[in-house]
Amino acid sequence: MLILAFESSARPASVALVRDGKLLAQSTSVSALTHSRTLLPMAEDLLKNCGVGLSEVDAIAVAHGPGSFTGIRIGVSTVKGLCWGANKSAIGVSTLEAMAWHGLAAGGFICPVMDARRSQVYNALFRIEDGRPVRLCADRAISLEDLAAELAGYEESVFLIGDGAELTRAYFERVGIPCRVAPDNLVWQDAWGVAMAAMEKVPVSGAELLPVYLRLSQAERERQERLARESADQ
Amino acid sequence: MLILAFESSARPASVALVRDGKLLAQSTSVSALTHSRTLLPMAEDLLKNCGVGLSEVDAIAVAHGPGSFTGIRIGVSTVKGLCWGANKSAIGVSTLEAMAWHGLAAGGFICPVMDARRSQVYNALFRIEDGRPVRLCADRAISLEDLAAELAGYEESVFLIGDGAELTRAYFERVGIPCRVAPDNLVWQDAWGVAMAAMEKVPVSGAELLPVYLRLSQAERERQERLARESADQ
Repeated sequence: MLILAFESSARPASVALVRDGKLLAQSTSVSALTHSRTLLPMAEDLLKNCGVGLSEVDAIAVAHGPGSFTGIRIGVSTVKGLCWGANKSAIGVSTLEAMAWHGLAAGGFICPVMDARRSQVYNALFRIEDGRPVRLCADRAISLEDLAAELAGYEESVFLIGDGAELTRAYFERVGIPCRVAPDNLVWQDAWGVAMAAMEKVPVSGAELLPVYLRLSQAERERQERLARESADQ
Repeated sequence: MLILAFESSARPASVALVRDGKLLAQSTSVSALTHSRTLLPMAEDLLKNCGVGLSEVDAIAVAHGPGSFTGIRIGVSTVKGLCWGANKSAIGVSTLEAMAWHGLAAGGFICPVMDARRSQVYNALFRIEDGRPVRLCADRAISLEDLAAELAGYEESVFLIGDGAELTRAYFERVGIPCRVAPDNLVWQDAWGVAMAAMEKVPVSGAELLPVYLRLSQAERERQERLARESADQ
């Protein structure tokens, strides 16, 4: 099975081509440019440089969230469009589950953390077993305080991956939770992880592919707060 | 310091852009195409997708060997040409030293091994200390038998990186040397490692950049054997 995978849920834009679990090619850019400008040219260049046509791809995978709302929308929309245009199946995977694959070499207790602002991180916990990440809890938006309280029960050091890794380390060090930040080549999510996480998922149609935000957007939250105030004022 | 780095010493072709030790972008392709066709288009696409011009780059780094003779020649020649054409400095680094950076997350004892044919691997040994690989011996072409004998003195498991990892593991398991193979996202060398290894090296001119083969090429070896036979026959 040949999977073309996309990751655009945070600063990196990443595209990978994986055949039967083996990485064929990957292109990852952590640039100042917006993903809507970089993602498709990267995919086109990658396929071209591999001598592979889009028609040969079996399914198109994408990190469907959580993460940057704009980034997720760009990734999911891109894959919806590609699936429709090229008549392909889609596979949406958890951004955090894809990131957990970066913990393989470190082993042990893997803790992807994305900066979710408002004193929270998007997070789930995984353990590396038999060469793959095994999920220990559902994706959630959680405060560093609550995450630290949860981890205080474990004695193991946790391996931090993602754009929330440095702020989480700073907090964990203050409260005495043993941890280390992934090195630079593993700290950012990439499309290889998305393809690996997609391997055992059931493909859907592009129309069925949906973003998973975990939280309301700021606009939606402010609207609901305004409506609540208005209804309280009446 | 902004480094553009190239890796083409084995099956992957890889290009990376690293600023002051921070990875900005990387493109790696493990395709059937020859590096002479893929390497420069990948670099061009990568710079374009980052919005960076070649003129902004401070130095161009390359894995100068050991490795595939053809691959090394393509990498070194490409960088010589780029340095001449764009008036840049070159930094040649050991392929094995660049690979050792992939051991950061695993930590401990790092053993890059490239299949050198004729029952040998290109290898050097490293230990991860303070977040970077520290070299324990010079690059060499060595038989698996001699490498195993050397490692029998250590009790630690070694982390195997490179296209010789699977054949080395198979041999080590037979003779009881504890080891594990890097996961798929770390087993191949890439240009990020080249850029990291280049950080503390002194740049040279493109003209001074030279390939480091470690062994004679097959053609050269056969010529010398023929000359030796001829001189013995006289």
